[in-house]
Amino acid sequence: VKAFLSELSALFMATSFAVASEPSLGRQTESCVSCHELVTPGIVSDWTSSRHARVTVNEAVKVPALERRVSIEESLGEEGDIAIGCAECHTRFPDRHGDTFEHNGFKVHILVTPDDCATCHPVERSQYDKNLMSNAHGNLNDNPVYRALVDEVNGLKALEKNRLVGKKPDARTDAESCFYCHGTEVKVEGEVTKKTDLGEMLFPVLSGWPNDGVGRLNPDGSKGSCASCHTRHTFSIEMARKPHTCSECHKGPDVPAYSVYTVSKHGNIYSSHGGDWDFSSVPWVTGRDFGAPTCATCHDRSGWRIFGLVYAHPSPVSANTATIRNKAGLPLPTELTGEPALDFLVDVEEQESRKTRMKRICLSCHSSGWVEEHYARLENTIDATNEMTLTATRILLRAWETGAASGLPQGESIFDESIEKKWIEQWLFFANSTRFSSAMAGADYGAFAKGRWFMTRNLEEMNDWVESKLK
Amino acid sequence: VKAFLSELSALFMATSFAVASEPSLGRQTESCVSCHELVTPGIVSDWTSSRHARVTVNEAVKVPALERRVSIEESLGEEGDIAIGCAECHTRFPDRHGDTFEHNGFKVHILVTPDDCATCHPVERSQYDKNLMSNAHGNLNDNPVYRALVDEVNGLKALEKNRLVGKKPDARTDAESCFYCHGTEVKVEGEVTKKTDLGEMLFPVLSGWPNDGVGRLNPDGSKGSCASCHTRHTFSIEMARKPHTCSECHKGPDVPAYSVYTVSKHGNIYSSHGGDWDFSSVPWVTGRDFGAPTCATCHDRSGWRIFGLVYAHPSPVSANTATIRNKAGLPLPTELTGEPALDFLVDVEEQESRKTRMKRICLSCHSSGWVEEHYARLENTIDATNEMTLTATRILLRAWETGAASGLPQGESIFDESIEKKWIEQWLFFANSTRFSSAMAGADYGAFAKGRWFMTRNLEEMNDWVESKLK
Amino acid sequence: VKAFLSELSALFMATSFAVASEPSLGRQTESCVSCHELVTPGIVSDWTSSRHARVTVNEAVKVPALERRVSIEESLGEEGDIAIGCAECHTRFPDRHGDTFEHNGFKVHILVTPDDCATCHPVERSQYDKNLMSNAHGNLNDNPVYRALVDEVNGLKALEKNRLVGKKPDARTDAESCFYCHGTEVKVEGEVTKKTDLGEMLFPVLSGWPNDGVGRLNPDGSKGSCASCHTRHTFSIEMARKPHTCSECHKGPDVPAYSVYTVSKHGNIYSSHGGDWDFSSVPWVTGRDFGAPTCATCHDRSGWRIFGLVYAHPSPVSANTATIRNKAGLPLPTELTGEPALDFLVDVEEQESRKTRMKRICLSCHSSGWVEEHYARLENTIDATNEMTLTATRILLRAWETGAASGLPQGESIFDESIEKKWIEQWLFFANSTRFSSAMAGADYGAFAKGRWFMTRNLEEMNDWVESKLK
Repeated sequence: VKAFLSELSALFMATSFAVASEPSLGRQTESCVSCHELVTPGIVSDWTSSRHARVTVNEAVKVPALERRVSIEESLGEEGDIAIGCAECHTRFPDRHGDTFEHNGFKVHILVTPDDCATCHPVERSQYDKNLMSNAHGNLNDNPVYRALVDEVNGLKALEKNRLVGKKPDARTDAESCFYCHGTEVKVEGEVTKKTDLGEMLFPVLSGWPNDGVGRLNPDGSKGSCASCHTRHTFSIEMARKPHTCSECHKGPDVPAYSVYTVSKHGNIYSSHGGDWDFSSVPWVTGRDFGAPTCATCHDRSGWRIFGLVYAHPSPVSANTATIRNKAGLPLPTELTGEPALDFLVDVEEQESRKTRMKRICLSCHSSGWVEEHYARLENTIDATNEMTLTATRILLRAWETGAASGLPQGESIFDESIEKKWIEQWLFFANSTRFSSAMAGADYGAFAKGRWFMTRNLEEMNDWVESKLK
Repeated sequence: VKAFLSELSALFMATSFAVASEPSLGRQTESCVSCHELVTPGIVSDWTSSRHARVTVNEAVKVPALERRVSIEESLGEEGDIAIGCAECHTRFPDRHGDTFEHNGFKVHILVTPDDCATCHPVERSQYDKNLMSNAHGNLNDNPVYRALVDEVNGLKALEKNRLVGKKPDARTDAESCFYCHGTEVKVEGEVTKKTDLGEMLFPVLSGWPNDGVGRLNPDGSKGSCASCHTRHTFSIEMARKPHTCSECHKGPDVPAYSVYTVSKHGNIYSSHGGDWDFSSVPWVTGRDFGAPTCATCHDRSGWRIFGLVYAHPSPVSANTATIRNKAGLPLPTELTGEPALDFLVDVEEQESRKTRMKRICLSCHSSGWVEEHYARLENTIDATNEMTLTATRILLRAWETGAASGLPQGESIFDESIEKKWIEQWLFFANSTRFSSAMAGADYGAFAKGRWFMTRNLEEMNDWVESKLK
Repeated sequence: VKAFLSELSALFMATSFAVASEPSLGRQTESCVSCHELVTPGIVSDWTSSRHARVTVNEAVKVPALERRVSIEESLGEEGDIAIGCAECHTRFPDRHGDTFEHNGFKVHILVTPDDCATCHPVERSQYDKNLMSNAHGNLNDNPVYRALVDEVNGLKALEKNRLVGKKPDARTDAESCFYCHGTEVKVEGEVTKKTDLGEMLFPVLSGWPNDGVGRLNPDGSKGSCASCHTRHTFSIEMARKPHTCSECHKGPDVPAYSVYTVSKHGNIYSSHGGDWDFSSVPWVTGRDFGAPTCATCHDRSGWRIFGLVYAHPSPVSANTATIRNKAGLPLPTELTGEPALDFLVDVEEQESRKTRMKRICLSCHSSGWVEEHYARLENTIDATNEMTLTATRILLRAWETGAASGLPQGESIFDESIEKKWIEQWLFFANSTRFSSAMAGADYGAFAKGRWFMTRNLEEMNDWVESKLK
């Protein structure tokens, strides 16, 4: 109740403040808005409701450090005294951006990139840069094994002489499948003149666009997109903190973080009480602002990569994983039989230090005995699921050795037969799901929904398949 | 903040208004309520909270056209000066309704139908009438091919002499399975006397009831039910605009619109920010009232029918699809090998005009380059998924031709063997899911959840099946 | 609007009340809080926001019977005049609790159990005690058939001489899989000294901990955990009434109650309008406080056990089902061919009386004709799904009899081959899902998502499997 009253009073204060000091728009942005509030009213309206429209950089800098929403410490001088509008982002660093074009007298670029955002958010930008997310394009596309899997998922199949023959996927399919999340490479292919409501205009032609994937390769040479999570043009911190945002790419059976979260106790608390939490406050304080972790609270502190490709393993040292090679020379973080490619992965000491960091979060609400056993269970499950993947691999190796299927020994694809698909599901769907279920204590998902039940059942079907081929 | 204050003041104004002008109930409705607030308090309470209880038709008509919630333009005279209560709907047009019965001195009918609602909402009723939805019963039940699929899904199977033998489903199963959504045929079968808390009473006996399917055949000869989406007895516009309502029938793998929406950017914005939107305002303005489309924003403008039966194809000309015949004489909108039955489908010009209409919505928030490539991807995916369905069809045709399975050539069911089930899943689950995922940019669903991965894997399993049968 | 104003005024009254009478903490609890608000701030903050922190037992008792949130009728004297804090629960009955330990001068136990809660909530505790939930551990673990299924789901498999060989699961896997929901047995295994921020301290070592399963076996001899649904340390009635809480254990394909609810009309109403309901009021009145049932409204009144193990059957007489034996001597509530083990199940009269009790809830919002046909459909579906399970059983029996698989006749596991897994899915996933879909009118889930489609398809695949083995 006190909270309500103080909120009420805050609202009235905020009102007078807002009325008094709504920042003025830059001259260029005024020009943008004058047309675009007619042409793309939804964008302008989103932006109008955003903090960017209501607070200047110079005001944002003055806030006490812990409450600051920008990570620069100095005011920007005169250019920091206006709202952060269209032009402030879309005309920044015009020479860096390959997609800059002449637009009604302004040098506008289409893709606002992390390098643009870094003007006011340099720390966030640099954290992101070191994160697996910003490397998501290359980590998939530049790894020949993973790229072959992409081709297998997105490519078409025709029946020729009673055999299935695969074709490479086209760029449009790639862009709306794997690379929707991983990010496309956006390139300027030329320019085109279009009739618009305001007459003929020239626009750049981009390939790989539209896209907002976390690892997008941008025409200014930067990687990623802040708008993946801070959706344009509200750029809301609230949205990035809510699990629905993560679910765009982390719900399906390959990385079912959101699906597991929703059946976990934490997810239950969020679903039941989250409507009363404050998702916008900075800093974001457990207990005061929110009552249970969302994805954004914990992510990326783990010493384990539980997303097994093919096996779960210690986290990679570098966020760029495309350079990893195992002893067999394959671009995989483990051997095909599970042994980790240690040179490219964090050592036990670093793992322990990350675990300690993770545990510190848990200890806000849980006793040490609780937390220790939680992690002991997770590590037990990492071992168990790796063992179940190894059993699947052994069945596959037998299929290859006996000629029941064709793979590595035959120099053929390891992904394009039904027994190989089952092997992939063993780790990509079932072992991964079981591990996510363990890590986030979402038991329901890891038992019958997509976890242990299917790990076991799949092994039996794999073995049946081989036996029937050899009969 | 301004919005908050104006809302606050609106609330106070609304209060005095409400107190002053709560409309009086009709004499008959007063009589209904006097018993039913004891007998079915939930219904009365729902209705009390509804707009029908708080606004008279004559008030509703006076509102400026754009804000009007009824589509008649003239007041109803004296009968329009009371609340829209029980009797106003349940005793309307008593002679038209086959289910009208004597009830405490009133001629009451059980099913309020679109023809009743048309008293005040004639435009909505007539739009609905031209929609696939209102034809959902006949489009399924009167099409021999689709009806055979229903029988296969709902019917029981017994093991006789080591073979599975199917039985036709009973009406109760049909009513709670396919026809829960498609709508049953509700017929008066007789009457029955029941003991009630208020003495013995006579009621009609209805078959196909209860049901609220969108294509319900009503005892007054009309089709459909407004309450499918505007749930009784609140009849809320808010509910019909929220995606949860659509999810009642559009979540499963056959028409996974809701499942795709939740992992799309639009769905993410709704899930994260929708709590702050105004779902009740008329008109419903992008930017002001809501920040991203829900299902109700776009549906039914498309030039393509992406729900493939068996292949995606241009939208049917008539909402009644049961009369469509392909060249082979089958009641399908394409040949079994994918060529569209052009005589029954909209032509390219109409497709383009519908696409233009769809695009106009997108252009509120997206640039033309963005929108054009979005549709180019969708059309690419329509082709790609049709090709993957064709490959599945070719495998099935081979199974039939070689006698590995029995289907068209043998004059037997095309749905009752496991290879035929896999073929169905190829288009009904996997190709459809991939297309919905493309249309709504919900990549996660179309990659591993239920889309491309399974399209490819299914072909391999289908081919394995045929090969093993022929071994 | 009236509601809003009275709420507003209530808020202001509540304020003064709250300020005036925030209850004082017990001396021991003060001591707990003084450290723990530093050590585990999340717990303290949760508790601070809870009713336990704001109302004393003696105040709670004074409330009129229908609005009372405790089920004792007498005040507790002096000990009832303080807030219900840490010590009031964690030091209650120290001699009963095997996990009591010396902690800074207090005798603290880690697990607060239903017997502790019964101090103020004896009626709830005794209802819970008679419920299947509180017996969930033993009903699974002490039934040799179900325990064998657990072993099969959680145990690892290795490939030895080209055959899959199973290992028993370890306790950690069991605890985070089946027994996360069913409840572990928590036992004191010893004690350990730990370094803490406040110096070295002694703690008990518990096995089976952490756990909050509904049938947990506690170190004080009691069963279950109130915190399964009333999550610590807010103990919110709101949370227990929201369906997300049930979804922690009832979402997957084995007991998909939540999944079905979300696509039912009731679920749709909750998802669309639930944000405006009052989930905290006592009593909880349909129409006034909420507009459609959530799980908590109806659960546990049914005369049928629709969760088929192996067949749906009349509800068991005793909540402890581990003692049930069928005529074949197996611990199952039906024969393997479906006939119910009548001695252990409620009779027809009791079934009818329970159905009448269930119907009374429905009749608040539905006519008698609606309600009667709803239950007629459910009972029809119970028969139909049992018949489909019987067909699956017949195929399995044939597999065993012909030696295509090894099961009962061979004295081998009935769960460890792929044909047996398909048989399990027939009842555990598909027949169960179809029945839940019928019971809650969530048609979409029971048609293609996980119900009828898969029941039929699975029979065909089972029969294919047997035929191919016998070829």
